Amino acid sequence: MREAIVEAAFQLFLARGFEQTTIDDIVARAGVGRRSFFRHFPSKEAVVFPDHDRCLADMTRFLAADDDGHPVERVCEAARLVLRMYAENPEFSVQRYRLTRKVPGLRTHELAVVWRYERTLAQYLRTRFAGRPGGSLRADVIAAAVVAAHNNALRSWLRSGGDDDATAAMDEAMAYVRESFGDPGPPADVVVVVARRGAPMWRVVQEVEAAARGDSPT
Amino acid sequence: MREAIVEAAFQLFLARGFEQTTIDDIVARAGVGRRSFFRHFPSKEAVVFPDHDRCLADMTRFLAADDDGHPVERVCEAARLVLRMYAENPEFSVQRYRLTRKVPGLRTHELAVVWRYERTLAQYLRTRFAGRPGGSLRADVIAAAVVAAHNNALRSWLRSGGDDDATAAMDEAMAYVRESFGDPGPPADVVVVVARRGAPMWRVVQEVEAAARGDSPT
Repeated sequence: MREAIVEAAFQLFLARGFEQTTIDDIVARAGVGRRSFFRHFPSKEAVVFPDHDRCLADMTRFLAADDDGHPVERVCEAARLVLRMYAENPEFSVQRYRLTRKVPGLRTHELAVVWRYERTLAQYLRTRFAGRPGGSLRADVIAAAVVAAHNNALRSWLRSGGDDDATAAMDEAMAYVRESFGDPGPPADVVVVVARRGAPMWRVVQEVEAAARGDSPT
Repeated sequence: MREAIVEAAFQLFLARGFEQTTIDDIVARAGVGRRSFFRHFPSKEAVVFPDHDRCLADMTRFLAADDDGHPVERVCEAARLVLRMYAENPEFSVQRYRLTRKVPGLRTHELAVVWRYERTLAQYLRTRFAGRPGGSLRADVIAAAVVAAHNNALRSWLRSGGDDDATAAMDEAMAYVRESFGDPGPPADVVVVVARRGAPMWRVVQEVEAAARGDSPT
């Protein structure tokens, strides 16, 4: 029923345009009643984004499931759930992208959809950063960065017509977020020593030796 | 005229609620015609955000004026224009904040308003990062981070009823953005040397000495 409504709606949106299609047109084509339509969707705009409620619920569950690990890593993984939802259905996603770019009302609706993900990520991070100074600031900024990076990867994939490798773009986007917010991934084979200018050289050498020894696996 | 419409609208929104106020109510109270209303505002929602068009124009001009300096620093400065607009008129800003939190339609409208700033910052950064690998990704992520940090500072000020120091919160927010995206501000009095593990100590010492000499103002 739900799928039939979405399918009928998209056929009409693509053939006639979004604005020119009424809810009555959609229900007539889908062979359902108006009441059924409104049981599934609060508005005509909502039909364009039928899968986000489920995806948001998946994200919420994913974040609630485990509070171990690095929080930045965790929100990057959560954002992958959204990309996966798009990538599972390339043809539909690309059609929707083209439609959304043409209709300002749908762009606004999409901003509200995106905002719910961002808020969900920020709330998770706020809990993880609770008690840290500037925790709510960090949470909001990192959540926004993750969403923007995800959207950048998603858009480049959508612009390719769904042909490019969505996962590769997403890997690059999430790597940039991790790099910016202090989860550098596996440690590199280097030693970083910060020395005060003017410190005697014997002390610097001592510190370099200590750092190299301390971090060395041998 | 414009101010009279905004003032009449806010009196009614606060007294009766946003949803319960019609455009006819507003124009009657302001003593103007419907046509005058629509010359200034495309919708009832737009009256709630009367100052953002001007502020966005200011931001666009500010960013176009100068392409020197560090791009991250520049977008942080641009975001301050928005905070300043709010802080110039604390009573109105706090009233609007309370109204916007109560009316979902206004929240969605506000998202669209915020999005215009984010896009403006991202477009500026994209130009500055043109030709760099991952430039569009960096631009989108940094723009989103600046906007989120600004909003965090703004919200904490609005929640204080406009009593807190808006500038102090904004300084902290922008410092976090700069720190995350590689514009560390004025150099500290330290030398950072990255040495490959296993490098002979004489080479490390040489590099520490060179770095200390090279950066030293004497």
